[in-house]
Amino acid sequence: MAAYSSQLLENAVNQFASLPGVGSKTALRFVLNLLRRSESEVDDFAQVISKLKHEVHYCRECHNLSDAPVCTICANARRDHSTICVVENIRDVMAIENTQQYQGIYHVLGGVISPIDGIGPDNIEVESLVSRAMKPEVKEVIFALPTTMEGDTTCFYLYRKIAPRTELKITTIARGVAVGNELQYADEITLGKSLQNRTVFQQ
Amino acid sequence: MAAYSSQLLENAVNQFASLPGVGSKTALRFVLNLLRRSESEVDDFAQVISKLKHEVHYCRECHNLSDAPVCTICANARRDHSTICVVENIRDVMAIENTQQYQGIYHVLGGVISPIDGIGPDNIEVESLVSRAMKPEVKEVIFALPTTMEGDTTCFYLYRKIAPRTELKITTIARGVAVGNELQYADEITLGKSLQNRTVFQQ
Repeated sequence: MAAYSSQLLENAVNQFASLPGVGSKTALRFVLNLLRRSESEVDDFAQVISKLKHEVHYCRECHNLSDAPVCTICANARRDHSTICVVENIRDVMAIENTQQYQGIYHVLGGVISPIDGIGPDNIEVESLVSRAMKPEVKEVIFALPTTMEGDTTCFYLYRKIAPRTELKITTIARGVAVGNELQYADEITLGKSLQNRTVFQQ
Repeated sequence: MAAYSSQLLENAVNQFASLPGVGSKTALRFVLNLLRRSESEVDDFAQVISKLKHEVHYCRECHNLSDAPVCTICANARRDHSTICVVENIRDVMAIENTQQYQGIYHVLGGVISPIDGIGPDNIEVESLVSRAMKPEVKEVIFALPTTMEGDTTCFYLYRKIAPRTELKITTIARGVAVGNELQYADEITLGKSLQNRTVFQQ
């Protein structure tokens, strides 16, 4: 689709087409959908986007997205502030929160160490994690990072930085066969880990 | 994904998720992508959307989207103003323009007659087409409407409205086997039409 009858239309299509996974046909579909809405609805749409960027905070404790300088999780006194779960990004926080199994607090690195992408320890929130982990009230740091080369590198790097505080417990989330998955389809590394880290059977 | 750490984030995700075919995970991906951009880029994004709705015109001749009261096609004196191609929506205009085979002008109905959806002749741009077709300088009206029940109904309705002007040529785009398609996969109606409307073979 090349010939747009309107420059305004073309600009809007190009903006939407700049979003990940959106081509010009999908972008046009979005724009035509917006055009069918009322002016106030479209203004709301535009305003919410602009407001998000201007007003959103990154929590000064855990770097999670937040409406206030400190996020609702860090500000919640009923959460266990002695346990910090280290994750790559805010999507991981949402995934863990949805399990409703975790009562501690988080630390969002904002990425993992990846020399090939030019991301070193200084580009992600490593220093702030190290200073948090040094606080006496912190008892445990859980690594919940991806099992990729980059994720593993980040785990080792963080471990070396925080292990000197010997009273700190450093753990990583369990790797094993997913609930509902069949053994024959699990890869060897996962299956091997699930055997190594077997737990006592409970009825 | 239920637990957003920020209301601003949730609002933005909900806005994007209101677009056709966008779920909350895709919407979150869009929003996180926007958050990684600079403030001025995000402001541009928001402004282009708002501007589109406030400043775009529907051409007063053909009802195509336009930056000015009359679109560039209708305003172009080098186009053949004696031929009007009737289409359902502006996407069809773009598709025909991309063929570079058509030199006439358009009429965008903004829909087809569909009693089941409550769309009657008064809800689409029928009256303005009839008055355009009555002008002496117009020699031909081409129907380029979908071959659905609704498209056919609209063609018949329009035909009855404009046929009284007997000097007007009323045509419809050819239906046949698509270029590159194999005969065995064409449906019977299309193949039948392609035989009925066979053309003289030219080398």
